[in-house]
Amino acid sequence: MTNAQDYAEENGDLFLNQLFELIRIPSVSTLPERAGDVKRAADWLVADMKRIGLQNAESIPTAGHPIVYGEWMNAGESAPTLLVYGHYDVQPAEMVDGWTSDPFEPVVREDGYIYARGCIDDKGQVFGHLKAVESLLAGEGKLPVNIKFLIEGEEEISSAHLAEFVNNNVERLKADVCVISDTGMDKLDQPEICYALRGLVYMELHVQGPEVDMHSGAGGTVHNPAQAISELITQLHNPDGSINVPGFYDDVLALDPQEREELNKHALSDEYWIEQTGVPMTWGEPDYTLVERMGARPTLEINGILSGFTGPGAKTVLPAKAMAKISCRLVANQKALRIYELLRDHIAKITPPTVKSELKLLHHGEAAYTDLKAPSIQAAIRAFKRGWGGDPIFTRSGGSIPIVADFQGKLGLPVVLLGFGVGDGAHGPDERYLVEAFHKGVKTAICFYEEIGKM
Amino acid sequence: MTNAQDYAEENGDLFLNQLFELIRIPSVSTLPERAGDVKRAADWLVADMKRIGLQNAESIPTAGHPIVYGEWMNAGESAPTLLVYGHYDVQPAEMVDGWTSDPFEPVVREDGYIYARGCIDDKGQVFGHLKAVESLLAGEGKLPVNIKFLIEGEEEISSAHLAEFVNNNVERLKADVCVISDTGMDKLDQPEICYALRGLVYMELHVQGPEVDMHSGAGGTVHNPAQAISELITQLHNPDGSINVPGFYDDVLALDPQEREELNKHALSDEYWIEQTGVPMTWGEPDYTLVERMGARPTLEINGILSGFTGPGAKTVLPAKAMAKISCRLVANQKALRIYELLRDHIAKITPPTVKSELKLLHHGEAAYTDLKAPSIQAAIRAFKRGWGGDPIFTRSGGSIPIVADFQGKLGLPVVLLGFGVGDGAHGPDERYLVEAFHKGVKTAICFYEEIGKM
Repeated sequence: MTNAQDYAEENGDLFLNQLFELIRIPSVSTLPERAGDVKRAADWLVADMKRIGLQNAESIPTAGHPIVYGEWMNAGESAPTLLVYGHYDVQPAEMVDGWTSDPFEPVVREDGYIYARGCIDDKGQVFGHLKAVESLLAGEGKLPVNIKFLIEGEEEISSAHLAEFVNNNVERLKADVCVISDTGMDKLDQPEICYALRGLVYMELHVQGPEVDMHSGAGGTVHNPAQAISELITQLHNPDGSINVPGFYDDVLALDPQEREELNKHALSDEYWIEQTGVPMTWGEPDYTLVERMGARPTLEINGILSGFTGPGAKTVLPAKAMAKISCRLVANQKALRIYELLRDHIAKITPPTVKSELKLLHHGEAAYTDLKAPSIQAAIRAFKRGWGGDPIFTRSGGSIPIVADFQGKLGLPVVLLGFGVGDGAHGPDERYLVEAFHKGVKTAICFYEEIGKM
Repeated sequence: MTNAQDYAEENGDLFLNQLFELIRIPSVSTLPERAGDVKRAADWLVADMKRIGLQNAESIPTAGHPIVYGEWMNAGESAPTLLVYGHYDVQPAEMVDGWTSDPFEPVVREDGYIYARGCIDDKGQVFGHLKAVESLLAGEGKLPVNIKFLIEGEEEISSAHLAEFVNNNVERLKADVCVISDTGMDKLDQPEICYALRGLVYMELHVQGPEVDMHSGAGGTVHNPAQAISELITQLHNPDGSINVPGFYDDVLALDPQEREELNKHALSDEYWIEQTGVPMTWGEPDYTLVERMGARPTLEINGILSGFTGPGAKTVLPAKAMAKISCRLVANQKALRIYELLRDHIAKITPPTVKSELKLLHHGEAAYTDLKAPSIQAAIRAFKRGWGGDPIFTRSGGSIPIVADFQGKLGLPVVLLGFGVGDGAHGPDERYLVEAFHKGVKTAICFYEEIGKM
């Protein structure tokens, strides 16, 4: 045990109480009436940064909620610089959503979990990094790396102003490695390193038939747009679940046998997934396992569809138009805009002459992928081994954190997803975070800084 | 000119002013706050019936709005009895809907049309029958037929209590022929007789994938229900626009060459229909003309579809469920319940094992069809010739009036659709009815009674 680890051990309860203070500030970024609370949470973090010895700590205003920045740059020019990214804003939470206790009054229950909004996503995880810094500065007097904290207040509303901030502060954010603790693991005794995130292209398909809604008594004479959009949607997949858009898979980085072996150590069984989701049978590309399909293969999902009359009862309308929200999860090395163009052109091509269609792009973000052999990943493996007490397995996330691709692309940084999240309910009721995972997170972060310092 | 026709001619302006009184009562059946007005309109009709010499005129309460009944049974037992059905309730109408004058303050504009809610649907048309009776009783002292009026106040809300009333009053409503004036013609100089109405079966298709909405980051592992419902919908038609449900067409009464010739006298050209609807190209069964597809062929239309997120912007949800409103327009001799069962069983059969589906029946009504050779149709032809001044063409309506099938089925009556509606906007803004059509309607009704009297 180092002095830093001793300090973390001795101050564990204090750290937890501090976290509870932060959690009690309902920094719900999507609700305008909570803007004051979001600002208060940013100020609280700046004060904590100053107290533990970070430099240049400040709450930086944006057109939305503030970005919190703080650094410690005394490790010397030869030492690597680490950029820690996290967010202090949270999803909305109300008792009526199904919470069994006040979402903004954290409690540790008999099961050993903290129950509160933001405890795992992401206040508890990013705060663990601040406590790792505190432990090192208090216990050792210095850090083994230069460190920069970038903690935003708009992650739950699509990081509305972060990309602009990153673009305008490339020099200030310059670093060698980026670490993000905002992912999780299924079981406390099996740490996970997520080395890939899917990209995303989100679109809206519009199909127009007649100019205005018609009476369905005139049916049989015009192509019903709700039917036409269904026909278009149907044609976007092959019967085996693969995507039927020419060129869609061209840039997909193939899985090599070694990576497949690693990924499938964390296999999802059909039985487990059926139980988890409640579907009668799983679905998808037959040549890939569930874990591969979720993380290493691109998808095309219908996120929503709307046409005509959808209220209770009957209305004999032949709708004028139909709309579907369609999004693709992308994997390395697909390019989001290219995929949009392929889909746009293909849909234009297969649209029958009886209706008009348009595919609009709503937003997009690139996939992120870090080579498992990268030194920063190797440092994370050793950190988990020493700080958490287990050999991590490697996962790819089905989800997307578009800012990761920004860090990789705009700042040229390898990104390590050092997730401490043992818990559940991140966007739902009864969000929870295992107290022991919080403490282990602090210790693992200390080890990670040390391992990066040796790079 | 008979005395009755003279009387109608001389009193035309008076009839119009009386109609305006009736129109000024905003008898909007769907609005609870208008219930008093609906009752007032019923009472107004009863008063008019008594004044013109009908017997047993009364406003009969129902669980909803009253039914107005009145009769004149002095033509003798050997004379045929005619049942006149119509409705005095109207659709809602507000200036904000796009009216260019107060919808409940009728005006005759320079174009010769009455503009007001209910003028054509159906106050103006059914009131024409009362004025025909008045003209005959005042001009000739008697009617050539026994006559029964059944004027309901709930036609615009699916005739909620009429079927029950018919069931409970089979003896009272006993007649030889039923006449309904609630249809129209495109041009004043070309009267039309609608001899068939389509039936309707209205259903809701529900598809369930996962038990609750999932994050689309887990996409590629379960069958997206919005996609699955699209696949099911797609399979319900063949590429040529015919319906792909085994047995669906089994009971369809084939069109004989003579009927096709009659129907296509009133042909819709592709160009006209494209201009009317704004579609880029028409659609439907290639072996049938537009007029045949609309009136003489059954259809399957998607009236609505809903799944997942449909608001502005993006939500990366993989929806748990999807819903579609599906309705079929049916033709003689299809049976609505049988069609529902065929669809239900077929959809169960083609539903993939990856999702669950259910097809619910919302409501249904049978198709109606009157043989063109029926004496009552022949009487209508002669009535139009004499009273309107033109040879009618024969049409089939794409729409449905379920009560017609009830009259045919429960009362065993041939139904003649003697439509006087030259106008437009029946359920929309600026509903209008040509004044000349109103007057010709009165005269044609007189002739129709006379022709029925000779049967």
